[in-house]
Amino acid sequence: MTTLYHYPLCPFSRKIRLFLGEQKVGADLIIERFWENRKEFIKLNPSGEVPVMLFDDNKFCGHYAISEYIENKFEDTLPKDLANKSENRRLIDWFDNKFHKEVSKIIINERVEKRFRSLEKGGGLPNTDNIRLAKNNLNNHLKYIEYLLERRFWLVNNKIQLADLTAAAHISCIDYLGDMPWDKFPEIKHWYSRIKSRPSFRSILADKIIGIPPRGNYALLDF
Amino acid sequence: MTTLYHYPLCPFSRKIRLFLGEQKVGADLIIERFWENRKEFIKLNPSGEVPVMLFDDNKFCGHYAISEYIENKFEDTLPKDLANKSENRRLIDWFDNKFHKEVSKIIINERVEKRFRSLEKGGGLPNTDNIRLAKNNLNNHLKYIEYLLERRFWLVNNKIQLADLTAAAHISCIDYLGDMPWDKFPEIKHWYSRIKSRPSFRSILADKIIGIPPRGNYALLDF
Repeated sequence: MTTLYHYPLCPFSRKIRLFLGEQKVGADLIIERFWENRKEFIKLNPSGEVPVMLFDDNKFCGHYAISEYIENKFEDTLPKDLANKSENRRLIDWFDNKFHKEVSKIIINERVEKRFRSLEKGGGLPNTDNIRLAKNNLNNHLKYIEYLLERRFWLVNNKIQLADLTAAAHISCIDYLGDMPWDKFPEIKHWYSRIKSRPSFRSILADKIIGIPPRGNYALLDF
Repeated sequence: MTTLYHYPLCPFSRKIRLFLGEQKVGADLIIERFWENRKEFIKLNPSGEVPVMLFDDNKFCGHYAISEYIENKFEDTLPKDLANKSENRRLIDWFDNKFHKEVSKIIINERVEKRFRSLEKGGGLPNTDNIRLAKNNLNNHLKYIEYLLERRFWLVNNKIQLADLTAAAHISCIDYLGDMPWDKFPEIKHWYSRIKSRPSFRSILADKIIGIPPRGNYALLDF
């Protein structure tokens, strides 16, 4: 029995949903509005962050603990070869840290979290300067990803790997909010359309936040 | 032959230095002032971030890739038992993400990086409001760590583990800059003094940044 506490527009939650989906592990999904600091949830994870996974009698707090667990349990998730493995981790780190810090964290905070937080806790209207800065950063990141995908079919080599799922988790949040400049990056668009058509991606495409509907062709395989 | 590109007051670099030290792996240490975006370094790691490790013919970019490599190579670094393993990862994640975002990143940026960056790249005098906020956050984090250490000899159980080394990597940067309120947290002080006396910690205690000497009793085992 697997339970995942997640938030639909949290890239780290999405990454774990994709990892589980690729392994065909079903999980009960519980949406946690983590910024509300619900007492029972803080008891589960004192850091107050999603995702948290319960698996039988085990508890895994944070995407780092969960993804390591999945990698160990399903040994085929990462390549054995050292160079591919470290290239995977380099790109996972790129998205989870650099891309998140410079792009996804800012855009999700401005367009989603600020809307639900109280004023004292940093809520309010989106700051357009911050969004402009994040979109500018996004453009630079996408240039690099486009450069990689002109040379490789998937991000690491010719096989879809955890790095692709991690990248798609972040990019899909940006796409939900309508900020992906697809037309400028044809290789990324091809890559994303291949990812979109995977069964593991279905539940991601069905996500809907009340008050913030998905923008553009978010849910369409042909976009 | 192992080479580590690092920065002395980067908590992620320190963590890797400690992991290597505990495994008695010697490495050539090269100080990289990463904010200068040196061409040769960007070629090595396009994200421009430290640490980067070269090991024989392999390259590992980022602390995530390096620490996974060390864990796999030296199998005794993490406990086999699932509950201990996930508790380790929960706390590693806590320090590398939550503590870093709310405390160490802010303090190091204000007191160190801003001093060396040009004005256009965010350099300048430290912002005392930001430092006050980070020190307030630090206090809340330390309360939780003190709570854990009142119940456990090391952070996870009765054995020193990667979670302790990760925590010490972050806390030692704060201590270098003189912002650790040791007197208020006796259990953390005991814990840190045990870590300080380990051979792996010697090179950390010998660190000196030109223009920013270590504060207080940073380098003393008896502090």
